Amino acid sequence: SSDVPATKKPCLEQNLELSYADRAKLPKIHPLASELLQIMEKKQSNLCVSADVTSSEELLQLADCLGPKICMLKTHVDILEDYTAAFSEKLQALAKKHNFLIFEDRKFADIGNTVKHQYEGGLYQISSWSHIVNAHAVPGPGVLKGLSAVGKPLGRGCLLIAQMSSQGSLATGEYTSAVLKMAEEQSDFVIGFICVSKLTKRPEFIHMTPGVQLHAGGDVLGQQYTTPEDVIYSKGSDVIIVGRGVLEASDRLTAAEAYRKSGWDAYRKRLGQSSQQDPRT
Amino acid sequence: SSDVPATKKPCLEQNLELSYADRAKLPKIHPLASELLQIMEKKQSNLCVSADVTSSEELLQLADCLGPKICMLKTHVDILEDYTAAFSEKLQALAKKHNFLIFEDRKFADIGNTVKHQYEGGLYQISSWSHIVNAHAVPGPGVLKGLSAVGKPLGRGCLLIAQMSSQGSLATGEYTSAVLKMAEEQSDFVIGFICVSKLTKRPEFIHMTPGVQLHAGGDVLGQQYTTPEDVIYSKGSDVIIVGRGVLEASDRLTAAEAYRKSGWDAYRKRLGQSSQQDPRT
Repeated sequence: SSDVPATKKPCLEQNLELSYADRAKLPKIHPLASELLQIMEKKQSNLCVSADVTSSEELLQLADCLGPKICMLKTHVDILEDYTAAFSEKLQALAKKHNFLIFEDRKFADIGNTVKHQYEGGLYQISSWSHIVNAHAVPGPGVLKGLSAVGKPLGRGCLLIAQMSSQGSLATGEYTSAVLKMAEEQSDFVIGFICVSKLTKRPEFIHMTPGVQLHAGGDVLGQQYTTPEDVIYSKGSDVIIVGRGVLEASDRLTAAEAYRKSGWDAYRKRLGQSSQQDPRT
Repeated sequence: SSDVPATKKPCLEQNLELSYADRAKLPKIHPLASELLQIMEKKQSNLCVSADVTSSEELLQLADCLGPKICMLKTHVDILEDYTAAFSEKLQALAKKHNFLIFEDRKFADIGNTVKHQYEGGLYQISSWSHIVNAHAVPGPGVLKGLSAVGKPLGRGCLLIAQMSSQGSLATGEYTSAVLKMAEEQSDFVIGFICVSKLTKRPEFIHMTPGVQLHAGGDVLGQQYTTPEDVIYSKGSDVIIVGRGVLEASDRLTAAEAYRKSGWDAYRKRLGQSSQQDPRT
């Protein structure tokens, strides 16, 4: 697992693919992005499982069972029918035990003054337990200003939604370009993107892609699926986000391991490919 | 208050401004939009107050005190520190008592399968008490399919966010056009828009505009303010959404009455203006 070509390690040329470990050490990287990349390297996992269940107990069991396989657990706390503050404490303990980050997929999308309250307050107090949140850029830069006022002092990070996996999404073209610009201007809080494929060569940003299954397809409400190989190797994203592919499997642990391996193999292939394409060779 | 020119009432020409009462009777109007327009006419109010407070008790007091002045109360339940199911029942009772609609400003913005759960489930069970919700169009039409699967059987309606009042918003140009198209394709659930100005001549759609204060200005997190006169008379929107203009007033009831009157006067002026511009006269 440490057989990344030695010639690559000291190299910082723009077209050369850096390993997760190399990127974790970049001078300008956000500490939380660095931590994530180190976890990915250590656990050989670029798998984020989307824990879309409605029972707190089931979510905790899932986190404990799949914890060793994942770099990140994605939650929607607002679909849990029995959320309590005690639950968030147990979830944080499991994140420590298994060394993964928590990503509450809240998709903040309001003006700065409102998201500040939504992030910090209410029943969920998301900022107190979630390492990472995400936001839509549609309200303009104020959404990030509001969130970072809460999250930055806590060492939290944010993913901007640059593209979506759903059919007919409006996050394309100029919209996506504006998202990139917004991220670059607030890179002290934005650690990367929710996207379909790699959007920027700046290796400090982490690209995360939802809508992943072992076989391509879709659901009846417009979700579209692509494969780990396609996402990581062909499209250059960094993390696969898998929900129903794991949750609806008869054996979730076996399914998670299959996704972990598939995502990691695709990453290794990408590193190898990049090495072959190195213009110096 | 009933001195709208009699010549206008039977008229359906596209360029003639219809009264709220006329629009409430349109054959293709959504029942909930019709109900809202009737409330507006009856209470002579196009004022929606944004109840951005963090205590349930304060929100209920606000609803009871300002209820007679408003056509709609806009909530962010996820900033309440003490939300309970009992609170939502009390809020519904106040909406009945004072004849206003409840609009939970959740800004749903995820794929269909997720928003379905967020709308119906979790601790808030929004679909069980909120007449109206809103959604961003950025995920594509699936977001409406997911929401309407829950809301339509309950007689609920949805506002699509076509524009935002915040600085640097990406909801402009082609994005806004795509939102309009999406609304037209799902007008059995979409009753109108969150917008800065009137976007379509289809009188069945209701235009609602946030970022309203008696004096133009802004906040430090990118919010921008315009006046009731500008929103209703110049820009042709239907409902003013006022938050801090009322909440931060020393006397909230007096402030709400000032906004109600200002919004209603602007509407009356628009109707008069339209009558003068009637090409037949």
